[in-house]
Amino acid sequence: MDSQQLAEAAGDAMYSNDTACKELGIELRSISPGCAEMTMTVRDAMLNGHNVCHGGFIFTLADSCFAYACNSHNQSTLAAGARIDFLAPGRAGDVLLARAEERALAGRTGIYDVTVSNQDGKEIALFRGNSHRIKGELVPQGENA
Amino acid sequence: MDSQQLAEAAGDAMYSNDTACKELGIELRSISPGCAEMTMTVRDAMLNGHNVCHGGFIFTLADSCFAYACNSHNQSTLAAGARIDFLAPGRAGDVLLARAEERALAGRTGIYDVTVSNQDGKEIALFRGNSHRIKGELVPQGENA
Amino acid sequence: MDSQQLAEAAGDAMYSNDTACKELGIELRSISPGCAEMTMTVRDAMLNGHNVCHGGFIFTLADSCFAYACNSHNQSTLAAGARIDFLAPGRAGDVLLARAEERALAGRTGIYDVTVSNQDGKEIALFRGNSHRIKGELVPQGENA
Amino acid sequence: MDSQQLAEAAGDAMYSNDTACKELGIELRSISPGCAEMTMTVRDAMLNGHNVCHGGFIFTLADSCFAYACNSHNQSTLAAGARIDFLAPGRAGDVLLARAEERALAGRTGIYDVTVSNQDGKEIALFRGNSHRIKGELVPQGENA
Repeated sequence: MDSQQLAEAAGDAMYSNDTACKELGIELRSISPGCAEMTMTVRDAMLNGHNVCHGGFIFTLADSCFAYACNSHNQSTLAAGARIDFLAPGRAGDVLLARAEERALAGRTGIYDVTVSNQDGKEIALFRGNSHRIKGELVPQGENA
Repeated sequence: MDSQQLAEAAGDAMYSNDTACKELGIELRSISPGCAEMTMTVRDAMLNGHNVCHGGFIFTLADSCFAYACNSHNQSTLAAGARIDFLAPGRAGDVLLARAEERALAGRTGIYDVTVSNQDGKEIALFRGNSHRIKGELVPQGENA
Repeated sequence: MDSQQLAEAAGDAMYSNDTACKELGIELRSISPGCAEMTMTVRDAMLNGHNVCHGGFIFTLADSCFAYACNSHNQSTLAAGARIDFLAPGRAGDVLLARAEERALAGRTGIYDVTVSNQDGKEIALFRGNSHRIKGELVPQGENA
Repeated sequence: MDSQQLAEAAGDAMYSNDTACKELGIELRSISPGCAEMTMTVRDAMLNGHNVCHGGFIFTLADSCFAYACNSHNQSTLAAGARIDFLAPGRAGDVLLARAEERALAGRTGIYDVTVSNQDGKEIALFRGNSHRIKGELVPQGENA
């Protein structure tokens, strides 16, 4: 497998067990080495006391996209931390698109930028995550594989 | 109403419309001026592809607790941004407790620290949020009220 | 003055009083609406106990560049906060280049990304700053100006 | 040596080579396992174009204090990243005090909170840093030492 095929296989393996994303309707639109795109539609059940999308769900979409991007090299990798800045509210029915991009990767740690936009292309949030690689692969790649 | 009664009234008003918290089983355990405590039990539907609680739900709990703390003065206040550091995984069935505390408040902006712990008192995540006050109150307090 | 001329005039006005930048040898290489570039040579006096450039000076370079970018619209603007991630050490004699770019600007608050690289183009640090506009201008622009 | 003596020895070893801190007048007031206190007087040379202390120097003080706290266990440790929130300006002549406290330490990574206050006890900035332990010690502690 080349790096693109490996990214797709890793994404598929990860998504098949990803109950949280499936429950929230978060879909993996694309994955490539260091990058991912995911979408989520804002449901009524995601609204908070201000009647806009709870920031936690916007974070969850961005954090998911970050996770797929940083696992796209087929090395098991966890989120160590992240910062999110909220730019504009998400509304019921909005289709949010997150795009994650690798900004740095050295040793076991990486930095990924994620932007979340709505269906009009308006930016809703900016997210920057710190990743930490652990042992293991998503798709086994033994020496004889 | 004194400041404690106002905090409780603001919390009640906010929670009554907070579909997201109710859907996720996030409960408001206590609220006081600048502080809040909320709990959430990790459900199977919150697990990610690594079979631990998706960080997005831990963020959502912390972010909710932050929101109640920063609205506890009955001034409508939004989350402008936040940083979370993940310390340990959340497991299915864990009962997570978030505690939010006001660290600074000047003009329209504030800073709140939230810690998320599990039922054994182990810290799961540290969160620091930046708030921004907007116009409006949660519980109307007219001049003649 | 058009927006580019205004950016340059604001940058000049700001730099003329900027003792800190001058003392550290931080130079303003370019400024345009929402953007700035600054350079700094790592001096022996900037080395820490690990014999590499103290992260504080790398932050100071990035923070300066952020300040010029967010004041480039000639509206007095302060840094409210920032996150920096250190990617690689700066060494004595390195010529560091910071580039700041506006990522979002709405109302009084903005977000700016700054990258710091060395003379080989290697990225040393990533910085994201939150700005807050206050009253006043750097270059007076009265209604009759 | 017990842990307190080791912290002091590590602090002394680090400070003896810390040109940057000495040049800026940053002094190590105290160090203990996971904690440190440092002071810095705001000099005219630290003022920016708004005639207040350049945020970079406030960060540098906080970052230094963080570094001493996270090296206090005598394990060589670097700053991986940090977030600072500026609460109030520093003025020429202010004597700033930074206090760093360990909030989490697991494996090679840690989180430290630093507060910076002025001589009146007013909080100037809040800082949270992420540390990363590398190989080596500040004070050699061989098995036969």
